[in-house]
Amino acid sequence: MRTEVCEKFGIGFPLFAFSHCRDVVAAVTNAGGFGVLGAVAYSPERLEEELRWIDDHVDGRPYGVDVLVPGKIAKEAEAPGDLLSAVPSRHWEFLAGIFERYGVPAPDLDAADGRGAGRQVTKEGATELIDVALNHPIRLIASALGPPPPVMVERARAAGVPVAALVGTVEHARRQVAAGVDLIIAQGSEAGGHTGEISTMVLVPEVVDAVAPLPVLAAGGIASGRQMAAAMALGAQGVWCGSVWLTTEEAETLPAVKAKMLAATSADTVRSRSRTGKPARQLRSSWTEEWDESPDSPGALPMPLQLIVAEGAMGAIGKAAENGNEGGRRLANYFVGQVVGRLDTVKPARQVVYDMVEEFAGTLERLAEIGGE
Amino acid sequence: MRTEVCEKFGIGFPLFAFSHCRDVVAAVTNAGGFGVLGAVAYSPERLEEELRWIDDHVDGRPYGVDVLVPGKIAKEAEAPGDLLSAVPSRHWEFLAGIFERYGVPAPDLDAADGRGAGRQVTKEGATELIDVALNHPIRLIASALGPPPPVMVERARAAGVPVAALVGTVEHARRQVAAGVDLIIAQGSEAGGHTGEISTMVLVPEVVDAVAPLPVLAAGGIASGRQMAAAMALGAQGVWCGSVWLTTEEAETLPAVKAKMLAATSADTVRSRSRTGKPARQLRSSWTEEWDESPDSPGALPMPLQLIVAEGAMGAIGKAAENGNEGGRRLANYFVGQVVGRLDTVKPARQVVYDMVEEFAGTLERLAEIGGE
Repeated sequence: MRTEVCEKFGIGFPLFAFSHCRDVVAAVTNAGGFGVLGAVAYSPERLEEELRWIDDHVDGRPYGVDVLVPGKIAKEAEAPGDLLSAVPSRHWEFLAGIFERYGVPAPDLDAADGRGAGRQVTKEGATELIDVALNHPIRLIASALGPPPPVMVERARAAGVPVAALVGTVEHARRQVAAGVDLIIAQGSEAGGHTGEISTMVLVPEVVDAVAPLPVLAAGGIASGRQMAAAMALGAQGVWCGSVWLTTEEAETLPAVKAKMLAATSADTVRSRSRTGKPARQLRSSWTEEWDESPDSPGALPMPLQLIVAEGAMGAIGKAAENGNEGGRRLANYFVGQVVGRLDTVKPARQVVYDMVEEFAGTLERLAEIGGE
Repeated sequence: MRTEVCEKFGIGFPLFAFSHCRDVVAAVTNAGGFGVLGAVAYSPERLEEELRWIDDHVDGRPYGVDVLVPGKIAKEAEAPGDLLSAVPSRHWEFLAGIFERYGVPAPDLDAADGRGAGRQVTKEGATELIDVALNHPIRLIASALGPPPPVMVERARAAGVPVAALVGTVEHARRQVAAGVDLIIAQGSEAGGHTGEISTMVLVPEVVDAVAPLPVLAAGGIASGRQMAAAMALGAQGVWCGSVWLTTEEAETLPAVKAKMLAATSADTVRSRSRTGKPARQLRSSWTEEWDESPDSPGALPMPLQLIVAEGAMGAIGKAAENGNEGGRRLANYFVGQVVGRLDTVKPARQVVYDMVEEFAGTLERLAEIGGE
C-alpha cells in the first residue's frame, strides 16, 4: 500500500494498534501493522520491562508508546502525595455502599492500585514515562489527552521520534498542530475510552482539511476492512484501532469482561465519567449505572481523582468477578467502543490484521466496480 | 454508476435527498439523484398540492415521499380531538414562561400550528397522507419512525411502490424486514432529526450484514462525496441525506436558522426530546437549553404531545426571529445533523449533487491509487 504514513513509519499496512498488552503490540507490528503500547497504567519500572520485552520480540520492526498527559488536570494532582486525601469522604462512602450492596469484598484502599494510576496522569508521572519510552527504539510517541506538553515534544524531537495526538474536535486538532505534533489521530465519539461527541464520519474529513498537509489517522468505530476503507475514503491515511484487540487471544482482558464483550451489541456501551473523571466510552454495567443514574450518586470527580476512586475499586471488582462473585460480574466493565457489537470471536491479533487486510482489499475492489468503466 | 439501487430506482447516482421542500426534491431528482418529500408537516390537501407541483416539474423522473408513522404513539393520540387537552398545564405554563423571559410574543395556542403537526403522527392522520401519496407516480414511500403499519405496506404493494424505513439499530432493521420493507435506511447517531445512539460507521456494516440481500442506504454524517464513498465502503448501496439541503438556495429554512447553520460547528448540535418527544438531533439553542437543562423544566412530553407544545411555539419563535426579536433568535433552531459544521455556503441543490458526484469520483480514484498495483 502506498500512503505517506506507510512510508514514514516503514509499514506495509497503515493499521495502528493501541493496546495495553505487549503481546498485541508485538503481534501487530510483526504482522505488518504498527503496535502502540498504552503506558498509562504502568510504573516507569514496569514500562521499562514491557518495552525491553517488545524490543526482544519485534526484530527491529516499528512500534510506539502512548502516554496520557491530561491538559487540564485537577489542581490536587500537582502534588501527587495529596491525591488520596483530596477525594471527598462521600465518594468513598458511596463506593463502600456499592461494595456492600453487590456483595463484593472491599479492597484495602490505602494499598489500592488506583493510587499508582492517579500518579501517572500527573505531569511528573507522565514525564518519567516519556523518558523511559524514549530510551527505546520507538518510532512514535502519542499523547492520548490534550496537547502534549512542551517537554514531550522537545525530548521526542531530540530523539527523532514523531509525536502523535488524539483529537475529538477541529479546535483540538489546531491546538495540537500549534504544539508541534507530527501526526493527528481524529477520534470519533463511537470510540472506546476518552472520546468527544462528534462521530468519526463527520470528524475525520474536517480534521483532515484543517491540519493538511499533516497526515491524519482515523479512530473510532473501526474494526474491519470495510471500516478501514471508509476511514481512508474520508481522507485518513491510516487507522488507529483499540477495541478490536480486547477480545484477541493475546489480550489480558479479564475473562469475565471478555465474555461480556463477546456477548455485547453495539448498543451496550456508554460514555461515562465514572472511571476516570472524563467522559470515556465503556461497557454499560452496574458500575456505570450506579455512578451515572443512581439518585444517591455523588457524581464523578474530576480527573485524576475519579481514576483513584475507580481503579482501585475496579481491581477488586475484577478479582471478585473472576472468583465467580455475581455482584462483581455485574459491576465489571472496561473501556470499549461501539464496535464491540461485532467482536464475536476470539482470534489471534495477527489474524485480526490479516482479516482486515483482506477485507480492505476486497472493499477497494468492490468500490472500483461500483465506479466502473 | 452500477448499484442495485441505481437500477431499481432508475437513477444515475444513488443519492437520496430528504427534504420538506418541493423545490429541493425536484432539483435533486432532475440532477440525477432521488428526491424524497418529507410529508409530516403537511395536511392531506397541502401534500396533494406539493406532489402535483413536483409531478409538473420532474418530467417523469423518480421521486418519493416520507411519512412519519410512530410505532409507539402516546395513548392520547388515538383520539386526535383530545390531543390538546392531554398536555399538562405545567407544560403550557413553562412554555408561557419561556415566551415571557425571552420577550417573544406568545402565540394563540388554540390556533397553534402544532395541533396539525400532532395530528399527522396519529394513525389516522398518517393513513390519509399515505393515500394521497400513492395517488401520485411516486417510486418510494418511506416510514421515518418504527416499522410501517400493515396498511402502509399493503397499499404500497398494491400500487407497486417499494417501501423504505429508517433504522437506528440492527434489531429495528430485523423488525422492518419482518414488516415487509424493501429498502433499509441505516441512520447513525450523527444524523439530524430522530436518531439513535449508534454511529453511522458502526451501524451501517452491521445492518448491511443483518438484512442482506436487501439493499441498505446509509444516513447520518453524509454531506460530501468523501462521506458518500465511505458509506459505500461500509456496504451501503447509496446514501440518504437530509441536513445538506437545509442551507441550499431552494430550502425554506428560516433565514435566522439558516444563518445559525452556516455559522455552526459540528459541536453545535444536541440530541434532544424538546421538539417532538423523541430524541432528535437539532441545533443547540436556548430552546433546547431551557427544556433540557433548566431546573424549572417539566421535561419533554412523549410524542406527539411534545410536538404539539413545541411546533406551535416554534412557529411563533420563528416569526419573532424574522422580525428581529433577539429572544426569538436565541430560541430558534431546527433539526440538523453534525455535518452542519461543513455547511458554510449557500448553493443551489443541483450544485450540491454535482459537487458530491465529483468528489465521490475523485475519492474512488484516490482509493484506487492507495490500493495501487
